Amino acid sequence: MTYSEAWLNYQTVDHLRFPFDTLYADTEKKTVLLATEELQMAAKRLAKVKLNHISDPKMAALALQGTHTGRGAIFMEIDGSIPNEEGYQIYKKKPGLVICGGGKSGLLYGTFALIRTMQTNPTLFSKICSGKQTLEKSPANPLRMLNHWDNTDGTIERGYAGNSFFFVNHELVINERVKDYARLLASIGINGTVINNVNVRGAATSLITGRYLPQLAKLSELFAPYGIKLYLSLNFAAPMELGALASCDPLDRNVQNFWKKKMEEVYTAVPLLGGFLVKADSEGRPGPFTYGRNHAEGANMLARAIAPYGGKIIWRCFVYNCSQDWRDRKTDRAKAGYDNFMPLDGEFADNVILQIKNGPMDFQVREPVSPLFSGLKATNMMLEVQAAQEYTGQQKHLCYLIPMWKEVLNFKTYAAGQTGADTVADIVSGRFYGQKNCGMAAVANTGDDENWTGHDMAAANFYGFGRLAFDTELSAEEIAKEWTRSTYGSNREILECMLPMLLSSWEIYEKYTSPLGIGWMVNPSHHYGPNVDGYEYDRWGTYHYSDCHGMGVDRTMAGTGYVAQYNEPNRRMYENIETCPEKLLLFFHHVPYTYMLKTGKTLIQHIYDSHFEGAMQAQNMLLDFDALKHILPPAVFEHIHTRLKIQSDHAKEWRDRINTYYFRMSGIPDEKGRTIY
Amino acid sequence: MTYSEAWLNYQTVDHLRFPFDTLYADTEKKTVLLATEELQMAAKRLAKVKLNHISDPKMAALALQGTHTGRGAIFMEIDGSIPNEEGYQIYKKKPGLVICGGGKSGLLYGTFALIRTMQTNPTLFSKICSGKQTLEKSPANPLRMLNHWDNTDGTIERGYAGNSFFFVNHELVINERVKDYARLLASIGINGTVINNVNVRGAATSLITGRYLPQLAKLSELFAPYGIKLYLSLNFAAPMELGALASCDPLDRNVQNFWKKKMEEVYTAVPLLGGFLVKADSEGRPGPFTYGRNHAEGANMLARAIAPYGGKIIWRCFVYNCSQDWRDRKTDRAKAGYDNFMPLDGEFADNVILQIKNGPMDFQVREPVSPLFSGLKATNMMLEVQAAQEYTGQQKHLCYLIPMWKEVLNFKTYAAGQTGADTVADIVSGRFYGQKNCGMAAVANTGDDENWTGHDMAAANFYGFGRLAFDTELSAEEIAKEWTRSTYGSNREILECMLPMLLSSWEIYEKYTSPLGIGWMVNPSHHYGPNVDGYEYDRWGTYHYSDCHGMGVDRTMAGTGYVAQYNEPNRRMYENIETCPEKLLLFFHHVPYTYMLKTGKTLIQHIYDSHFEGAMQAQNMLLDFDALKHILPPAVFEHIHTRLKIQSDHAKEWRDRINTYYFRMSGIPDEKGRTIY
Repeated sequence: MTYSEAWLNYQTVDHLRFPFDTLYADTEKKTVLLATEELQMAAKRLAKVKLNHISDPKMAALALQGTHTGRGAIFMEIDGSIPNEEGYQIYKKKPGLVICGGGKSGLLYGTFALIRTMQTNPTLFSKICSGKQTLEKSPANPLRMLNHWDNTDGTIERGYAGNSFFFVNHELVINERVKDYARLLASIGINGTVINNVNVRGAATSLITGRYLPQLAKLSELFAPYGIKLYLSLNFAAPMELGALASCDPLDRNVQNFWKKKMEEVYTAVPLLGGFLVKADSEGRPGPFTYGRNHAEGANMLARAIAPYGGKIIWRCFVYNCSQDWRDRKTDRAKAGYDNFMPLDGEFADNVILQIKNGPMDFQVREPVSPLFSGLKATNMMLEVQAAQEYTGQQKHLCYLIPMWKEVLNFKTYAAGQTGADTVADIVSGRFYGQKNCGMAAVANTGDDENWTGHDMAAANFYGFGRLAFDTELSAEEIAKEWTRSTYGSNREILECMLPMLLSSWEIYEKYTSPLGIGWMVNPSHHYGPNVDGYEYDRWGTYHYSDCHGMGVDRTMAGTGYVAQYNEPNRRMYENIETCPEKLLLFFHHVPYTYMLKTGKTLIQHIYDSHFEGAMQAQNMLLDFDALKHILPPAVFEHIHTRLKIQSDHAKEWRDRINTYYFRMSGIPDEKGRTIY
Repeated sequence: MTYSEAWLNYQTVDHLRFPFDTLYADTEKKTVLLATEELQMAAKRLAKVKLNHISDPKMAALALQGTHTGRGAIFMEIDGSIPNEEGYQIYKKKPGLVICGGGKSGLLYGTFALIRTMQTNPTLFSKICSGKQTLEKSPANPLRMLNHWDNTDGTIERGYAGNSFFFVNHELVINERVKDYARLLASIGINGTVINNVNVRGAATSLITGRYLPQLAKLSELFAPYGIKLYLSLNFAAPMELGALASCDPLDRNVQNFWKKKMEEVYTAVPLLGGFLVKADSEGRPGPFTYGRNHAEGANMLARAIAPYGGKIIWRCFVYNCSQDWRDRKTDRAKAGYDNFMPLDGEFADNVILQIKNGPMDFQVREPVSPLFSGLKATNMMLEVQAAQEYTGQQKHLCYLIPMWKEVLNFKTYAAGQTGADTVADIVSGRFYGQKNCGMAAVANTGDDENWTGHDMAAANFYGFGRLAFDTELSAEEIAKEWTRSTYGSNREILECMLPMLLSSWEIYEKYTSPLGIGWMVNPSHHYGPNVDGYEYDRWGTYHYSDCHGMGVDRTMAGTGYVAQYNEPNRRMYENIETCPEKLLLFFHHVPYTYMLKTGKTLIQHIYDSHFEGAMQAQNMLLDFDALKHILPPAVFEHIHTRLKIQSDHAKEWRDRINTYYFRMSGIPDEKGRTIY
């Protein structure tokens, strides 16, 4: 099996001045050795320079050194603040440059940062080399995790890039690819990974048994020098399925004993394990509700059992009634997460983290930010986003998601009134409430495809998630530039072509799919392709209520009352149709087709225009990409071109189906007289 | 595995006068032995009489005798016409009664007819015994076949009664159940059965190889004394899949040779085989179109190869474009069968039979009759109906289909102008064109469920198909009475409860599902449950074109022109919205919601009323059935009651989804102000 190095393929950078030829590092430590090797490889491939080890740090052109670890402390005179365990500082120190890490991870991250600077910003690299600038960074978020939805049989739930590279035929695989996966994660600062599906069924329940523990120990050891903690998804019903107990009631002494012993067994075998991710009482998964217990009782029971080993319980808030009667217009799924978890604020153990999806529904193209981030004050929180493009084109369509995640991070919660220091980024980083167990997680978009992510350009979401979780101040554009240059080299034409494609892709996808925050107009189950009524009469709580007069969900106080879950002035803003952001208009309001938008267009005309425009832009991306025909390697061009063609064609299907549906429904013709069927 | 005897359970008939105690028959013949045993069992169980064999036919109270076969010819003085091979005559001949068969099948059918008369019509039975009446019948249709869509892995395509009893884990099973299946078929006059799915894939392609032939020979021998011919479905691509040829072009000499040799091999091993059923160029199945050949060339190639063995090729006309662009409003799937096969009229070999579905689409709740029956004049035809309730409630809902099939059989084709002797029944029986290779086939609704048909009462469709194919003059009511009495005994209350349920069930199902012949408002793929737009934007050519003004498909000359496929005056009748039968209104016309029906209701009000009424009637069936709570055996009651409850609940789901869709679409409220969501 071959696979690409993705953004770590280190193509030669033209005119890169690399003024070093000697290197000092304490390579007895595994992480330092990895960093050193990475640096040597990068120097050789980027700048055609061979870096030789020397034994005297004072004489080395490049010195890798930890502050808190490592025997030598000679480079401790750091400018500015001392980086934390995972932070780094890179500065000029005659005769060369020092990469100083707060700990082993920081040193590795610093090394990758210097390499990235060489690749993507030669000017800055020059300044660092000449001492005009230092490069200094500590991660914004304590936890920066991937969630793989890989099943032990090798399939991946919502996977669009082939099969699992962790599991083949129920065996846990450890090979070169897994090692290179760890290298990719380290290069973007990801420090934790859950390798199995949150829906834990069948053999996956046995991951915490002797069948898998020895191999898991090996994997955790492979990950460790890369600064990565191994996590697993847990089956809440394991006491019944593995322990033959009659219940999994968290207040049952036998259940508590089961978990106590189980954690002892697991941590004896896999001491490096980070902890567990749990999907309970969600979409048919077992949980504390079955026993009349709440989620704090469920999570804390596990947390107590794992606490002696320093483990964490990451508990998902994706809890809602997935058997709703579509006739019931009062129940609002959007309210469920808040309703279920707000009353428990302050009750969760210190080593429990609530993992909250960015929006209140489920990774739609556009949703408002989950009100839980605004509400919870005494609970560890982690933001969950989805790099896997379940509802955003399934890695056949280009949809660069960093702009969406930036909007989420920048959302003002007003948890502290009007201070402005309480964005979602402030909350989940722990800055606002002074938390340590918090951060960001992404549902991974990877698989065993040669390019890791199905669509070559979907790797920008993989890359971008790590970079953003590490440094939430980075802009979507900066990240896109970094990824493009790292992946495809310093060719200006490639950047000029791909950068606008990436940056406009989410908006384009939104335009030709579901309008103004309505969501859910997809085929049931597999979630690919248009189907306006696909979920309209189903049990999932996902409705648009389109009729011949208008469409959208009234979530104001006169409607489901969902807006009440936001702090002021957000509540007011959403409540009032005039101040509600139009991109979310139909999420919050039921609106007549004749309603005039701020653009001066009616709602129905906006729907038509948006779909025609989006499909046209998808087609234009395909045409624009032709500019790279003789610049990219033919196989790379062909691969991306094929997907853009699929997207362009499929965008027309979206356009025609949505427009036809609304034309038939509203009876209002397109002002511009374009073909609607 | 246990299973019921269905309508052959022979419950005691109260006050049955059975004036016989001796019996003569030539039991050296297998069929006669079967008939004799059946008669003895029936006498014992129905009337508690033991019938003893005696050797002198002149002394026997009951004598079973063939006209053309059998050594004795002493009872040849038959009143009226001599029955054909499969016909029978039962008449008084002192000192007793003679059951006289035109051949061995006729004798068996006569025996079952006499038993059925004892069970279901004691008055008639008395008259026969006393010589006041003879019982005489020859089958209306030469071929009376079941098509099982059983796969070799044991699953059944569109099967709603468990798994296959023919195939388990790719092995062909011959056991007591298969024998009892043959008994059931013989009792209702079915004389042919195709045991494997028309979609022949994988292992099923190998049914015509040494792997299966010996077992198939045994099965054909088991069937023979019951008057049943074994048939198989064939993979048109077998030359490629089995013969490693590069094509299956019917004009390719190698392909022809392959089939010649294959038929020789098959018939050497299974000389009793009736022939093959072929689904070609249909829904992805291979066929002659791939090679630019027409269906006559494809079918005749097989027909020539099988002719030396007296075999038949039954060729399905279910050929249409299943990759239609939903935007294309000119192509009309309803036209496809006629367009594909009419130009070939007269070109098919004598041993080819075209098997034509009752309607031009695909077994919807209501369709017009396929115009092929009106058009083809020099081609053998067989009518295909579907006992399996794919679109009619999947044997969870009660839907007695004989009234539908009666309408089809009674449809005047006007093939002969205004003579009236050219109904579909006249055509497919061979009476009209003097054909012998023709008849009726039903997609079977059986499986290995204890009761054979999932829903106990769905057995009425199994039973009814056989009876109707044998005697197309029987009314739906007569058949329902026969089935109820045979199955549940002579209790008057059972008949009074079940008969109206059966007779109204199709209409009730129609009322709460899709209105006025529109069809297709079902969930894609599995076809169960309401989904108005389920197929609207799909590739299957099945659209309703609902918009805020109206709905229905314009198939007049101003529309797709489908009406032109009918003979006058049918053509005119359908063309004109005033004369078009309203039950098919939306099949032929696109109609505004405000259109006034002959009932004085608008179309939209009819939709609302029909769905409220149908759902109410489904609920009433459930309530009415309670009358049998202490009359039927508890398990029988419970089983039917459970299904009626499912139906009653699900009918409300249909009601609410369809009504809500059309209320939202039309904006016109229900005149009666009932709840629509």
